[in-house]
Amino acid sequence: MKAADVLLLVLDLAGTLVFALNGALTAIRSVRVDIVGVITLGMITALGGGIVRDVIIDRLPPATFSDWRYLAVAGVGALVAFALGRRLDRIALSINVFDAMGLSLFAVTGATKALQTGLGPVQAVILGAITAVGGGTLRDVLIGQVPSVLRSGLYAIPALVGAGITVVAVRLGVDGLAAALVAALACFTIRMVGLRYGIDAPTPRDAPPS
Amino acid sequence: MKAADVLLLVLDLAGTLVFALNGALTAIRSVRVDIVGVITLGMITALGGGIVRDVIIDRLPPATFSDWRYLAVAGVGALVAFALGRRLDRIALSINVFDAMGLSLFAVTGATKALQTGLGPVQAVILGAITAVGGGTLRDVLIGQVPSVLRSGLYAIPALVGAGITVVAVRLGVDGLAAALVAALACFTIRMVGLRYGIDAPTPRDAPPS
Amino acid sequence: MKAADVLLLVLDLAGTLVFALNGALTAIRSVRVDIVGVITLGMITALGGGIVRDVIIDRLPPATFSDWRYLAVAGVGALVAFALGRRLDRIALSINVFDAMGLSLFAVTGATKALQTGLGPVQAVILGAITAVGGGTLRDVLIGQVPSVLRSGLYAIPALVGAGITVVAVRLGVDGLAAALVAALACFTIRMVGLRYGIDAPTPRDAPPS
Repeated sequence: MKAADVLLLVLDLAGTLVFALNGALTAIRSVRVDIVGVITLGMITALGGGIVRDVIIDRLPPATFSDWRYLAVAGVGALVAFALGRRLDRIALSINVFDAMGLSLFAVTGATKALQTGLGPVQAVILGAITAVGGGTLRDVLIGQVPSVLRSGLYAIPALVGAGITVVAVRLGVDGLAAALVAALACFTIRMVGLRYGIDAPTPRDAPPS
Repeated sequence: MKAADVLLLVLDLAGTLVFALNGALTAIRSVRVDIVGVITLGMITALGGGIVRDVIIDRLPPATFSDWRYLAVAGVGALVAFALGRRLDRIALSINVFDAMGLSLFAVTGATKALQTGLGPVQAVILGAITAVGGGTLRDVLIGQVPSVLRSGLYAIPALVGAGITVVAVRLGVDGLAAALVAALACFTIRMVGLRYGIDAPTPRDAPPS
Repeated sequence: MKAADVLLLVLDLAGTLVFALNGALTAIRSVRVDIVGVITLGMITALGGGIVRDVIIDRLPPATFSDWRYLAVAGVGALVAFALGRRLDRIALSINVFDAMGLSLFAVTGATKALQTGLGPVQAVILGAITAVGGGTLRDVLIGQVPSVLRSGLYAIPALVGAGITVVAVRLGVDGLAAALVAALACFTIRMVGLRYGIDAPTPRDAPPS
């Protein structure tokens, strides 16, 4: 493998690990589930977005499912969350940082894979965002909550921005790795600024009270 | 394109538009979601049934996702619902009419596509109904409600009738467009009569109170 | 067909029937749904796990959807549950027994099909369990409940054991039918012992009260 590929793989696995930790911890905090539930929900958070993407672009079986490294990293992350439970809250800030990293990386790699299979630019942007937010959405549905990505905060929007920059760069023929890093950084920055200042996307004027 | 194909495309896009409006409006009324949620839920209502159908019949990537016209129409419908909010209620009657049109069209086109890929008649009828009710079902799951199609009213039944007439007509070799219109009209009529007179499908005798 | 194939088909259809009965009855008990809801939820419980498996391993259209025998058996099971309602409770013990049979059979056949399509052993074990528990999980999501498989009891664990024995046996080249029966029996036994003695899987220490 080239150095750039190794770097991307390592970052991708880091995103997977943090999504699994975060997903399992969210499940533990929200509902009464057993070890099967914690591990399932952690793994679905980490791998679900990539699986939905691969179903849509017809790359089956899904990469995040057939590649044992993703399964192993996701499983370990979920197990650690089960073992440590809310003591992970102490590193919640770091978890938010890593979660934003995962969001950024998945948006970029998801959009790239969509372009590679010949989808149009708008479709690739949407699929990048689906890759990034899909796992958490599936988890929220399974624990009986309206997915947080639909309700508040800036989560899908930075993913769309990151995927959008990726698509523009590929179309302009800009070098892959540099463009990927810029796109991921833009997504990461918007996400962290949104978290820091509690920025929400606009809501419809007649929305029911929260 | 032939005139009949243009007509079918226009009707299909009209159904998509109204499903997006209706889906976004249902989301606004039911839960507190932001602009990301409104647009996502509107688009899923409009495109979700076709995506589920295309996954099942292995026509990936799904037509309603790769064809930009469906994406654009669904996105515009959801955006309009976000901008106007409950002021759309004034045209709620029209929305019910258009929703019934969308239901009818999707049942017919879904069954037709299923037959084209070689599925048997019963499977094609079921897939027609899934195309018609799938998007709204996904939306209801995402906003934490038991899908209304499972609970009351006549919604899946007219879709099954429309898809059934389509399948019988194709098997008998009856001319495509005329048969499609009869099938859609039958679905539309049953749906509107059901709405007008508040007809429900039978419920099991020991059902919990609503 | 060989005698062994006939036996497996009969057992598979028996599992489908009982999953449909059980799924429809769970729906009737839990929420107010009409006949469309009862039949849909029964059929999804019976066929959903196999459909998710076939999407993942790219065997589309899914076998449980294209083979009319599965559709017919699932539909009949759901209809019987609709007609009899809670009077089926009298045979609830038998239903638990048959449900455990279905769980065992689906875990074994799911893992076998996954291996046949070239997936690795860990993936095959996971897919076996998904085949076994997927339908009930989809049903629980549709009726607005956190899937019971994530919460308590021994349900996914026996399925994982059954799928695991299957995979080991295939890898060791042990004769198919005998190994399948041992694997199914192990799953069945663990499930029934768990039910009999009310055994739960461990829960995280900081879990919210149930």
